[in-house]
Amino acid sequence: MDFKLHNTDDRSGARTGEITTDHGKIKTPIFMPVGTLGSVKGIHQHELKEDINAEIILGNTYHLYLRPGLDVLEQAGGLHKFNGWDRPILTDSGGFQVFSLAENRKLTEEGAMFRSHIDGSKHMFTPENVMDTQRSIGADIIMAFDECPPGTSSYEYAEKSLGLTQRWLERCVDRFDNTKGKYGYSQTLFPIVQGCVYKDLRIKAAEHAASLNRDGYAIGGLAVGEPTPDMYEMIEVVNQVLPENKPRYLMGVGTPINILEAISRGVDMFDCVMPTRNGRNGMIFTSEGTLNMRNLKWAKDFTPLDTNGTSYVDSFYSKAYVRHLIRSNELLGAQICSIHNLAFYLWLVREAREKIDEGTFSEWKKIMVEKLGRRL
Amino acid sequence: MDFKLHNTDDRSGARTGEITTDHGKIKTPIFMPVGTLGSVKGIHQHELKEDINAEIILGNTYHLYLRPGLDVLEQAGGLHKFNGWDRPILTDSGGFQVFSLAENRKLTEEGAMFRSHIDGSKHMFTPENVMDTQRSIGADIIMAFDECPPGTSSYEYAEKSLGLTQRWLERCVDRFDNTKGKYGYSQTLFPIVQGCVYKDLRIKAAEHAASLNRDGYAIGGLAVGEPTPDMYEMIEVVNQVLPENKPRYLMGVGTPINILEAISRGVDMFDCVMPTRNGRNGMIFTSEGTLNMRNLKWAKDFTPLDTNGTSYVDSFYSKAYVRHLIRSNELLGAQICSIHNLAFYLWLVREAREKIDEGTFSEWKKIMVEKLGRRL
Repeated sequence: MDFKLHNTDDRSGARTGEITTDHGKIKTPIFMPVGTLGSVKGIHQHELKEDINAEIILGNTYHLYLRPGLDVLEQAGGLHKFNGWDRPILTDSGGFQVFSLAENRKLTEEGAMFRSHIDGSKHMFTPENVMDTQRSIGADIIMAFDECPPGTSSYEYAEKSLGLTQRWLERCVDRFDNTKGKYGYSQTLFPIVQGCVYKDLRIKAAEHAASLNRDGYAIGGLAVGEPTPDMYEMIEVVNQVLPENKPRYLMGVGTPINILEAISRGVDMFDCVMPTRNGRNGMIFTSEGTLNMRNLKWAKDFTPLDTNGTSYVDSFYSKAYVRHLIRSNELLGAQICSIHNLAFYLWLVREAREKIDEGTFSEWKKIMVEKLGRRL
Repeated sequence: MDFKLHNTDDRSGARTGEITTDHGKIKTPIFMPVGTLGSVKGIHQHELKEDINAEIILGNTYHLYLRPGLDVLEQAGGLHKFNGWDRPILTDSGGFQVFSLAENRKLTEEGAMFRSHIDGSKHMFTPENVMDTQRSIGADIIMAFDECPPGTSSYEYAEKSLGLTQRWLERCVDRFDNTKGKYGYSQTLFPIVQGCVYKDLRIKAAEHAASLNRDGYAIGGLAVGEPTPDMYEMIEVVNQVLPENKPRYLMGVGTPINILEAISRGVDMFDCVMPTRNGRNGMIFTSEGTLNMRNLKWAKDFTPLDTNGTSYVDSFYSKAYVRHLIRSNELLGAQICSIHNLAFYLWLVREAREKIDEGTFSEWKKIMVEKLGRRL
């Protein structure tokens, strides 16, 4: 994996760049649609490419390990072959899911023992076998196995947890560097910087991660219950330490405003379930603010879903029709809002790139943040 | 509406023809995907057109009357404008739904009083207001309001019910002929032939319907619990009475085999929720038989979903991937199987048309019925 930094904004930490993987290039800043189980919920692969303009999608190690399982994925020739997505894929390591979804979790120095949320079966994730699992899944970018403590953790817990995450990270790096990709293309490992909302822990974590000299770095453990200003502060603290010439990925964040604020603090990559999850529930994000499609207000509004939207659903379907579908729990409503929201998120990062390259990012961001905060 | 009979099969009742409506032509025999609430579940309108090759879709009066309601539909300019489907639409009258979905149903000579299955609100359907409602929805083909008795009804009940249905039919015709379409294109009314599994009642019903000299006729009250041979017999009985130069629509039927058997008995139009409902549950119909996508058998079968399929999903997605999606309750699994099944049903009637025109329908049907009955 290679990263070229293109432009940096004079008045903020924002920057543009380009990641090159064996499955193609990714322009940054980028938003990555979440395909937990190897499918972005409600969206066909050709829609992701042709309508949403996704350049990279996510998969999740915890979910894919349980279903369909490594045996199936290996015989398929990896996740790209299995799901038909031939552009880059990033897999989360399962650390977050083991702590949020799995049952009877037991943490030791060795790893995390847990029971499947599907059938209660017992499993053990270790830094080593999570690297092996991600080799089998075959994502272009794989994540270190970490502990993700709650946003409200005490300093004592956060410090202890970070120690474990750092030792695990070293084991991940060791295992990753001593194994090879299984499908003939290269993979790369991103460390995850933890440390809750404690500046000194975040600095320590970022310095340790940077010392390992990887192709890119992730900031984890944010948007997990802490106040938003703390999140922004932690991003600033971490990005002051992480090397400038490597991409920085803020995990699981967030609203369109969060994304612009994080871009202005030097983040290059994002993922979040919000556009699809909120979309399925009838909430859509637009360049003029958010709309709750359930509202009576849209019952007889036959104008296009989003006149500023870039997706075909924005011009083809009306607000009134989408409201009807969402209220009636019709699958098509969830599909339309998911496509719209993902296309909007991709538009947002594309616009941000253009504005950074033009040198007008800060003015544009200020106007956008005001508009994005509106409820229409 | 106009119907031209093209070819009739020498060795069966099968025939080909073409219906012309103000929203375009429909080649018969035809299958009509069901879009109860104005959307075919899980399917975008452009997929219906471009991938499934649907020529006409259904809507349901009962559902559309309750949600979004006539006020919205009228202000939209009718259902075509509301949902963006510009090809023909047929609406069922709501008779079947009042008797299968609604609560606290009370039947009188005047009509059917019922409570909404959504919010318990009280409503009255009469032959007259159901005609008016379908004028407001604006379907090209609208259905008479009838009582649909269970397939296991006694002769006494069936006879009494048919009497009511016939009186209602005359009131429907009267109302329809004394009102006009609201959106500048023409609509037509199909009577529904009832009579349960009783030959003499079916003949009486068909003779009465035929005497009203409409553009087409429907056979209702089949596939509602009676044995399949009885269903086929009733189709034969009714089609011997109905005029040859008008299309015949068998309501709510059925499996691919049912459809071929009915075509061979002179039916021209079909609708059924089976391709979408079973598809959402992971059952797919193919020209070689049916597949339950949940089966372990497909776990590592990386061949295309259906090598004989006509839809892009058939070649793009593998059986193993679709199995994974269906088992994991991923929306995309339901979408893929629904598109596949509808494309298959449309392929089946298209093939039937070709074989009838070529004069090889009976041989082809025999081979197909054998294959369609297989479980793969």
